[in-house]
Amino acid sequence: MLRATSTALQSLGITGPALLVDEARARRNIRRLADKARRDGVILRPHFKTHRSAAVGRWFADEGVAGITVSSAAMAERFARAGWRDITLAFLLNPLEVPRLAALALALRGRGGCLGVAIDSVAAARALAPLAGGEPAVWLKVDTGYGRTGLPWRDPAAGAEVCAALPAGLAPRGLLAHAGHGYRARDRELLRDIWVETRDRLAEFRRGLGRPDLRLSVGDTPTCCAVESFAGVDEVRPGNFVFFDLMQLQIGSCGPDDLAAAAVCPVVGVYPDSHRLVVHGGAVHLSKEHLTAEDGRALYGRLGTLQIAGGLGLGRVLGDTSVTDLSQEHGVIRIPPRDFSALAAGLQPGDLVLIWPVHSCLACDLLPRRVLPQGAPLD
Amino acid sequence: MLRATSTALQSLGITGPALLVDEARARRNIRRLADKARRDGVILRPHFKTHRSAAVGRWFADEGVAGITVSSAAMAERFARAGWRDITLAFLLNPLEVPRLAALALALRGRGGCLGVAIDSVAAARALAPLAGGEPAVWLKVDTGYGRTGLPWRDPAAGAEVCAALPAGLAPRGLLAHAGHGYRARDRELLRDIWVETRDRLAEFRRGLGRPDLRLSVGDTPTCCAVESFAGVDEVRPGNFVFFDLMQLQIGSCGPDDLAAAAVCPVVGVYPDSHRLVVHGGAVHLSKEHLTAEDGRALYGRLGTLQIAGGLGLGRVLGDTSVTDLSQEHGVIRIPPRDFSALAAGLQPGDLVLIWPVHSCLACDLLPRRVLPQGAPLD
Repeated sequence: MLRATSTALQSLGITGPALLVDEARARRNIRRLADKARRDGVILRPHFKTHRSAAVGRWFADEGVAGITVSSAAMAERFARAGWRDITLAFLLNPLEVPRLAALALALRGRGGCLGVAIDSVAAARALAPLAGGEPAVWLKVDTGYGRTGLPWRDPAAGAEVCAALPAGLAPRGLLAHAGHGYRARDRELLRDIWVETRDRLAEFRRGLGRPDLRLSVGDTPTCCAVESFAGVDEVRPGNFVFFDLMQLQIGSCGPDDLAAAAVCPVVGVYPDSHRLVVHGGAVHLSKEHLTAEDGRALYGRLGTLQIAGGLGLGRVLGDTSVTDLSQEHGVIRIPPRDFSALAAGLQPGDLVLIWPVHSCLACDLLPRRVLPQGAPLD
Repeated sequence: MLRATSTALQSLGITGPALLVDEARARRNIRRLADKARRDGVILRPHFKTHRSAAVGRWFADEGVAGITVSSAAMAERFARAGWRDITLAFLLNPLEVPRLAALALALRGRGGCLGVAIDSVAAARALAPLAGGEPAVWLKVDTGYGRTGLPWRDPAAGAEVCAALPAGLAPRGLLAHAGHGYRARDRELLRDIWVETRDRLAEFRRGLGRPDLRLSVGDTPTCCAVESFAGVDEVRPGNFVFFDLMQLQIGSCGPDDLAAAAVCPVVGVYPDSHRLVVHGGAVHLSKEHLTAEDGRALYGRLGTLQIAGGLGLGRVLGDTSVTDLSQEHGVIRIPPRDFSALAAGLQPGDLVLIWPVHSCLACDLLPRRVLPQGAPLD
């Protein structure tokens, strides 16, 4: 069974580790979220850190997306070069990057767009002075329960201090939260509760500030996929949903047919006695992000198949297989003994296998990318 | 205390995540291993996957190193361009890469050098045919107990089959083992036992093959640092020892003053109430390699200081601090409550901190690099 997938993968001319993106699946994932946001009149400002691809960016534009989210100055500059004009850097301001951000803000304003920045401290507010001419959208980061960054949602007075420290000519545009604790949930009901709580805490912080004009921006794939409606906020910023991955599958954000990115790795060792395959595909390709499998072991990925009939596309998850060890360049795949001979029949060093990553954002950052059905490089 | 390090780091003009290499420490680490190998008349063939740097490669050449180890075809090509002629690709042959390896083998042979390749199967042996003209050194990979790849050390007959499958004009050069299970040891006595066992099992496999001419090549930083003598093998292939890292410190391969590479990250959030710092420095910079701390939590790094007097160099490990969470771009650092005000006094967003990585090879792969004392880019 793996041989058929290998033969099809070899027809694409792949010889080393790579990431395959299924365009049809990714576009369907984008459309689903875009439709949901449209229904509620909420702006979808997708996080582009997942794909970092100008081409995938165009698939979003095709669904009417006009503004995007990024997580670094370099990424903001890259997507500005790709033609995007409305870019929020939803990562706390690094004051050392203010000079380059000031130049970017000016450039985007000159094209009728806007750079958004996020702050949660008086020091960062003061550091914004050189950006004033670029008229950035200033977002206050609020901690609604995740506990990573942001002003405590119970402390709008601290938010007022930050606003008061903004240099002349700058005013807050809105409040921004990231409910990253949704990644620990494995239950849609709980995810919906987190979404409602995030929204309500942001609204309460806004009431405390006495600034009903401030916009509310929330976002993360688990809660955005779990809720039925985005009502009550102004924009959502999920990112991972374009590709999903095994972590989102475990959380319940998607079904197996929504997985839109998988790694391709060359087999370098076949060990029937221990029911293992060893591939060229390690921490430098997949990252060491892992899930915990039912037996308590770390799980770094699972084998997959290619959909071959009717044009190449990504196929199924082989649920009992697992990548159990990753070193720098090696990945070790275990197959249940009862399935080994059927699955791996005829497999040799030089075959290619498909591996579903645990965290598609990291795999996409590390691997050269190609897009199905044709297998052309993805810029 | 962290402020003084931040001020010195800012003097280098760093604004985003980077890796600092301490040249004096790295050269000392190289010299120590090179001296040890020389004493026993054993070849040091260091693994260059740790640093992947042409400049660091020259530090090895300064200590008389003539042959190197790499883990991918791309890395082999890169160091061939940097002038190296004797390169072993100590990663099982990927038959899909045979055409480019054949070209490389020919080129190295033309310069009086040699490409080494590793195989453990009949299929891979047969795939070598196009390389014959380049006269590669063929190494049989033997599994001496790690259990990842290689022919079982108890099964020299399987090795004889692989040798018999070698195309005309190719003969085995030697046996190659990697005792990766040393990474699980935390005791020098145990590491020495693993080294002796590895050497003796390779020798037994060689006896079984009836090929006393075959050379023996072993290597990994933990066992190579633990043993007093390399007697009984022909070459050693450790790599990580050039920089070491928190994992090697925990294993006992080095002392804290031997750590020769540390990440620099900009602080974006300071949270005295929760005794935390948040930095721009996440999984895409440090990888998600982790140790388990005494409290059972994952540990992704520790804060460090810079040595400032007498020229900039890397300094101390702040042993009670820890990077406890890494997301894609964020790192969360926890400082014991009793130390927070002293350590973090005056720290603001825009300061820079030094983080010792858990696995220097991965951080070095992900970050732009600079070298101390001057802070110039490291090619």
